[in-house]
Amino acid sequence: MTKVQVNLPTGGYTIHIGPAGIGKIGELVGELKLAGKALVVSDDNVGAMYGEKALNSLADEGFKAELATVSPGEDSKTLAAAMKLYTKAITMELDRHSPIIALGGGVVGDLAGFVAATYLRGVPFIQVPTSLLAQVDSSVGGKVAVNHPLGKNLIGAFFQPRLVIADTSVLNTLPVRELSTGLAEVAKHAIIAAPDFLDYLEENHLAIMAKEQGPLAEIIRRSCQIKAGVVEQDEKEAHLRMILNFGHTIGHAVEASVGYGLYTHGEAVAIGMHGAALISRYLGLCSSETVSAVCSILRRFGLPLLARQCSPDELLAFFSRDKKRVGGAINWVLLKSIGEVAIVNQVPEDVIRKALAEIT
Amino acid sequence: MTKVQVNLPTGGYTIHIGPAGIGKIGELVGELKLAGKALVVSDDNVGAMYGEKALNSLADEGFKAELATVSPGEDSKTLAAAMKLYTKAITMELDRHSPIIALGGGVVGDLAGFVAATYLRGVPFIQVPTSLLAQVDSSVGGKVAVNHPLGKNLIGAFFQPRLVIADTSVLNTLPVRELSTGLAEVAKHAIIAAPDFLDYLEENHLAIMAKEQGPLAEIIRRSCQIKAGVVEQDEKEAHLRMILNFGHTIGHAVEASVGYGLYTHGEAVAIGMHGAALISRYLGLCSSETVSAVCSILRRFGLPLLARQCSPDELLAFFSRDKKRVGGAINWVLLKSIGEVAIVNQVPEDVIRKALAEIT
Repeated sequence: MTKVQVNLPTGGYTIHIGPAGIGKIGELVGELKLAGKALVVSDDNVGAMYGEKALNSLADEGFKAELATVSPGEDSKTLAAAMKLYTKAITMELDRHSPIIALGGGVVGDLAGFVAATYLRGVPFIQVPTSLLAQVDSSVGGKVAVNHPLGKNLIGAFFQPRLVIADTSVLNTLPVRELSTGLAEVAKHAIIAAPDFLDYLEENHLAIMAKEQGPLAEIIRRSCQIKAGVVEQDEKEAHLRMILNFGHTIGHAVEASVGYGLYTHGEAVAIGMHGAALISRYLGLCSSETVSAVCSILRRFGLPLLARQCSPDELLAFFSRDKKRVGGAINWVLLKSIGEVAIVNQVPEDVIRKALAEIT
Repeated sequence: MTKVQVNLPTGGYTIHIGPAGIGKIGELVGELKLAGKALVVSDDNVGAMYGEKALNSLADEGFKAELATVSPGEDSKTLAAAMKLYTKAITMELDRHSPIIALGGGVVGDLAGFVAATYLRGVPFIQVPTSLLAQVDSSVGGKVAVNHPLGKNLIGAFFQPRLVIADTSVLNTLPVRELSTGLAEVAKHAIIAAPDFLDYLEENHLAIMAKEQGPLAEIIRRSCQIKAGVVEQDEKEAHLRMILNFGHTIGHAVEASVGYGLYTHGEAVAIGMHGAALISRYLGLCSSETVSAVCSILRRFGLPLLARQCSPDELLAFFSRDKKRVGGAINWVLLKSIGEVAIVNQVPEDVIRKALAEIT
């Protein structure tokens, strides 16, 4: 398996990338000198597909492992779901050295990670992301959270995993739209930080869309490397880490204005990246070739560039709410060229409006 | 005000000790370069006595501060109470730079600290402990938590405050039994780490019991210094920090076996320190003079040495449950002399039984 090393002040860890990773969970967790009991957290769908394989792998290495599943989807990211997992952990008598293993997509990772961060003030946390989005994005960075009825991810922690296993073979069963949503974040990493990686994506987009294992492992490796590089310099999200929000200001507004679920996260971010590229162009920060390069890769990955259901006024209303929340100014992550971003917190409203008119 | 500096890998902070600290909250929080909104968390009793003073002090420095209170007592250390505080924080639109200020005893500190650790993945946390126990113990060390129906403090985090203000004048209204419970932890710090501090306590016990401000400030200062010294070397409780559990193995069993509430925490720990000193003596680790010195200071502080309601068998049953939980052995914190402890994980049962017979 390919490895990416993440080095952080609060402790480093390795991301293992390749096929058949789930069958190696026991071995890799054992290498961390952990033993005894383990709790695997999954959702009903992923648990049915891979739960037994994960438990067997852990049993082979002598772990007494059990599986706890939650309903699939964002509705499971609650304190109530966390409470059920605490109860499971307590009745299993998990101690401070017992790993909690997230086997699933972003929801499972966020929920299980929050429980691992807070059960007994923190127990070893292992991520086994099973969607491309989770493999390239949410399993790197240490952000874990549950939702509050009044907003997403408002209750959480920065808590790093001890190990990440990205099994590329599970992507074989991933629906194409889920593949695309992960590829939006892959494209984002290339656009903000690595022109050569964008070239690779352009050249290999057919192999990637056909889920060839080699290119999939490569794009996960590069994505994790880029995100890890940013997070290593700014673990607690002081400033630099902001560049990872490229496309997310408009993306979040698109998701919220049409209601969560119509667009996938990646689709909304793709539309947002298109919008941010246009704003960059209108401000004279980047060339039209840069905008074209952004649009090209998003099209290759089957991602939308336009949010026809939204109106500029609706989206602007979301920005002004955000603006109020952060106390005055939105930090726009804009492009100077592929691989070079600028943070701009004063963008004239007519420029934003022009870009929004273009993408809606 | 006297200051104690705590230096930790995850960020240091200052403990301010002296009279009239509550009136200085605004000024001291302002010195941390925090501004804007602030949430003061208290219980109904402490909030009624000092809430307005705290809010006024914050308003004087330009903060928009609000008070949220919970019912007094351990029953407020729940996820449900935390949820109400999250909702308050969200509706107040607290952001990442808005301090959450715990004004109260250990329960308020643990609950507000847990909310500060997890709201928006962590916001600035300020401790204003109003009981002696909280001033000398729970406000140093960064352990925050809520209870689970199946056990105390099972859901929590290590999260350091940005500032601690120990206002000695609030102790004037503290009932003597609450004073004593705090003094048990003060005595513990002296016994495990500082013979000269134990001498100070012996010489000044009358002034301390009479709540003279100077000696109170001094014992808080020394206690915080000793605990900070231990925590600085072992923030996440790997090993050294274990010495702070002196008296707590038997103490917890005493509390649990008679039901929480009959003995205060400090009373149970005093009985536990007596028991641990006896075990140390029976194992030949320390002299009978050391046991006498332990008993002497506990008596001076109005603390019990015996738990007449308990039986050795009941207490032993709690140890074997603990033993199972930690996977095999209890780490007994024992005394070689005043200021010198030993961690022993193999103590013959007949020795334990003999000590338990002596203290029940």
